[in-house]
Amino acid sequence: MSTLSDQLVKMEKHNSIFESAVRALPLPVCPAFGAASQPQAVTFASTERVLSTKDSDSVAKSFPNSVQASGNVVLASSGTNLKAAQGKRVAVLFSGGPAAGGHNVVVGLKRALGAGNTLFGVKPGPKGLIKGNLFEITDADIESVVNTGGFDFLGTDRTKIKTDAQFNQVKETCVKHNLDAIVVIGGDDSNTNAAVLAEYLFKGVKADGSGVQVIGVPKTIDGDLQIGDLLPISFGFDTATKIYGEMVGNILQDTRSSLKYWHFIKLMGRSASHVTIEVALQTKPAVTIISEEVAEKKQSLASIVDQIAQAVIGRSAKGINHGVVLVPEGLIEFIPEMNVLIAELNDVLAHHADAFASEADADKTAFVMSKLTPANATLLASLPAYVVRMLLAERDSHGNLQVSLIPTEQLLVDMVKARVKEINSTIPFGAHCHFLGYEGRCGAPTLFDAAYTYNLGLTAGSLILDGRTGYMATVTDLDKGGVPRAIPLTGLLNIERRHGKDEFVIEKALVKMDSPAMQYFVSRRADWAADDLFCSPGPRQLWGDVAKQMPISVALNSGAGSLVFSIG
Amino acid sequence: MSTLSDQLVKMEKHNSIFESAVRALPLPVCPAFGAASQPQAVTFASTERVLSTKDSDSVAKSFPNSVQASGNVVLASSGTNLKAAQGKRVAVLFSGGPAAGGHNVVVGLKRALGAGNTLFGVKPGPKGLIKGNLFEITDADIESVVNTGGFDFLGTDRTKIKTDAQFNQVKETCVKHNLDAIVVIGGDDSNTNAAVLAEYLFKGVKADGSGVQVIGVPKTIDGDLQIGDLLPISFGFDTATKIYGEMVGNILQDTRSSLKYWHFIKLMGRSASHVTIEVALQTKPAVTIISEEVAEKKQSLASIVDQIAQAVIGRSAKGINHGVVLVPEGLIEFIPEMNVLIAELNDVLAHHADAFASEADADKTAFVMSKLTPANATLLASLPAYVVRMLLAERDSHGNLQVSLIPTEQLLVDMVKARVKEINSTIPFGAHCHFLGYEGRCGAPTLFDAAYTYNLGLTAGSLILDGRTGYMATVTDLDKGGVPRAIPLTGLLNIERRHGKDEFVIEKALVKMDSPAMQYFVSRRADWAADDLFCSPGPRQLWGDVAKQMPISVALNSGAGSLVFSIG
Repeated sequence: MSTLSDQLVKMEKHNSIFESAVRALPLPVCPAFGAASQPQAVTFASTERVLSTKDSDSVAKSFPNSVQASGNVVLASSGTNLKAAQGKRVAVLFSGGPAAGGHNVVVGLKRALGAGNTLFGVKPGPKGLIKGNLFEITDADIESVVNTGGFDFLGTDRTKIKTDAQFNQVKETCVKHNLDAIVVIGGDDSNTNAAVLAEYLFKGVKADGSGVQVIGVPKTIDGDLQIGDLLPISFGFDTATKIYGEMVGNILQDTRSSLKYWHFIKLMGRSASHVTIEVALQTKPAVTIISEEVAEKKQSLASIVDQIAQAVIGRSAKGINHGVVLVPEGLIEFIPEMNVLIAELNDVLAHHADAFASEADADKTAFVMSKLTPANATLLASLPAYVVRMLLAERDSHGNLQVSLIPTEQLLVDMVKARVKEINSTIPFGAHCHFLGYEGRCGAPTLFDAAYTYNLGLTAGSLILDGRTGYMATVTDLDKGGVPRAIPLTGLLNIERRHGKDEFVIEKALVKMDSPAMQYFVSRRADWAADDLFCSPGPRQLWGDVAKQMPISVALNSGAGSLVFSIG
Repeated sequence: MSTLSDQLVKMEKHNSIFESAVRALPLPVCPAFGAASQPQAVTFASTERVLSTKDSDSVAKSFPNSVQASGNVVLASSGTNLKAAQGKRVAVLFSGGPAAGGHNVVVGLKRALGAGNTLFGVKPGPKGLIKGNLFEITDADIESVVNTGGFDFLGTDRTKIKTDAQFNQVKETCVKHNLDAIVVIGGDDSNTNAAVLAEYLFKGVKADGSGVQVIGVPKTIDGDLQIGDLLPISFGFDTATKIYGEMVGNILQDTRSSLKYWHFIKLMGRSASHVTIEVALQTKPAVTIISEEVAEKKQSLASIVDQIAQAVIGRSAKGINHGVVLVPEGLIEFIPEMNVLIAELNDVLAHHADAFASEADADKTAFVMSKLTPANATLLASLPAYVVRMLLAERDSHGNLQVSLIPTEQLLVDMVKARVKEINSTIPFGAHCHFLGYEGRCGAPTLFDAAYTYNLGLTAGSLILDGRTGYMATVTDLDKGGVPRAIPLTGLLNIERRHGKDEFVIEKALVKMDSPAMQYFVSRRADWAADDLFCSPGPRQLWGDVAKQMPISVALNSGAGSLVFSIG
């Protein structure tokens, strides 16, 4: 046996004991793909579902080829593809922030394409596609990345392909590498980009007049890419929320052990609160703020602060001087009065730029106050000095404030502290702040994400071999074995005004007040606030009986009878 | 079957799917305790090891009863205790910050004491002992807490029992509850307190003149309570470092996926860098700072900054514009020049308090600068404004700065950014900061910590039934089945000057430059800095082949042949 230090050196570069073991985990496949040991690509057939949005007519005009080809009809697998295409050259890329399971999409894609076709990796992301930075993915590559976390096999970036020059460069890449298809693994924006690319590359790309197929795969830890039962959840959400859930569970356990602190925990998720409600359902903390509810009820910042302060006071009366508050990252933009304040600040700073710049630092706040409407001046005056400084800080190139930089969790701590003191100065209130974000994007996938993404890859590969373009791969019925389906991307597009012009976009899915997950949360939260009823979901397990759990919010919203998922 | 929402309600209050399952995990016992299904208390006999410190003579004078009884001789288990005492009344308490496995110490203690003796829980910590807040721990309690994380079963606090009044109150508690023994689960300070209590309660506590036994159990996630092969590690360290290790591994994977950020991660650990070196060994990041090495080499802040900047520049030359830097929480106090600066600042602020207070805010820094020696004035001028503000902020009641409040990770980011720009302004450097601390104290114990603490509890219970007092329970030979031993607490005491007076303390174990773990780290770190050689240890597993891993630094330092531990 080698010495321990020799063993340690061998673990370097993705060969920890854990990483070596997860590579050997079996991957189940939906019944449609046949035997797990040798999955077969499937064909697709139309279902009775046709998708539409308020802007379907405009979409049909701007995406004539795609809409004519798909009719915006949802497809479902229709049997093994016995005459699967051969010799196809397919490129795959990651787009946007990383999420657990991306590697398994590539693994599934490679297995669906089989030995008769060639898979290329694009490095990194859309930028790599524009630059034509491709390499052939080998079976050995696949063996090394299966079931591992992160997007590091290919890297990713956030370039949006939008200028004519960029589209031309992508076309050049397709011609140069003689590509037949591109698979874009990304979120709402990236799948919108995939829809645009699919239309652009529909035909006439190559010498023989043929086009290049484009297939999207739904990724995002934020969980805001959801399409009812057709796409119950994007991949990466389960892993991220289980990582955050463990951390929140650990901290809850700490609050009841140390008996003296509140912890305010901000959770990643650009705008929607899916991550926050899922983590709340897993852990049952004292207070959870849901941005969409704040917007719906037109809550003021003061009322949110008061709501938390009342929980602090109510628990203290029972001798509980600790607790956890979950705060969604995007909260500020969902508080109507904050939006109004920020909009007026943007205006004032734009219209009085020179005068503002010439004021001494100590006088800048007073200067701005004097220009604001009374309501906004009052609101600004109620905020801690460091938040006022941030609100008056430099604008981005569009003249907008970068709201995401405001430390919402610290702002709430400071305001709750002041409010509690105002109501009853004898109540002890000590608090710590956390932001859980980057820790959750690149962890090793849960069994759910590992199986889901592998089957998304098999579905994407099958769509290519079946000659489809302009679809997003999906796997439905996740508690009943799994069914490969395809969603026509043009059926999801809406028109939104962004940066002063109309753009086609896939609408972000927000937490719905009437969803079963929200309703369950609302039915329990008063009890969670009143007493310590939390539980610890623990570290996600890859082996053993507890390993097979889907997200609680997804299970509730899809009417599943238990948390155990069933793929294969 | 109940509906999903019914199942969810049942999971509240520590009944997640995970928590329910870990309670059923088998707990191995050291061979000395017999069958795992029904462990038996053991007796102890003297070994040939006698402990001493530079202050042994003084200790013998101040702890005459304890030293005379133990002779500072280490004990080892010597067979099943066939005549174990009956009718003993034993109290157990947590002291200091929580750590994973504390509940299993209580479980082991209860099982060792068996049905013939009574175990009381003290709520919370030393404060509860002073107040006499005790309750009888039942078998049902034990079933509910086994293998769960946190100290929430009893709670904890940081009260140090030191005044005569406090000692008297503890004695009253012993009399009132007719206690025969107290088990203190805590770190270096708490075990020092246990030694003092053992001497104080040695005899004459109860009407019949008898005393109360006191046994310590070694806890701390910081890992700074270590006594060579007699105590290779305190409990909680393994769980905390595996939690931090997973997070750091996830973030490393993110750096290579997103390809554009450095992450500076501060790791909990009041002064020693054991946690940091262990996490580095698990994950292999680009740069790891070890406080003890900084002190040993008398490194300046500028040289630490330069060392990181050189790594940033060297990697950038290879196209790697990302990486991770691990920073131990206690770093600042190990930088000699910072210590000198802070000491002079404390003096200046104490001697010129009124003049300083009367200066306008904008002039305070200049005022202090004018009073400092040139070297310290230059160092202060090199620091970012927010750090200067903190360094000039209010002192604690002893006139000292709370060094732990300085955001070292942000300070390093800002100084590295400036240094990189100074050397080569074309090198991109974007960075995020993290502090991993509270997340790691109360997670569910790893299999290592679960087994280790259960056997520490069995050992502590056995020591009580064997009539011992003034010992710390330990389990050695963790890669060879485990041997219960006892360390005489008086053999560990040194005299240190704290707050202007001599105190007996157990010295904190620091990372040693010549330890195998440090030497292995030093032999590999240049390669880790030069290229991405990291690996992801993944979430700790409780089931499956990868679950049995001890800390890497502990395995290296104890000469183990592999990471697989062996208890039972």
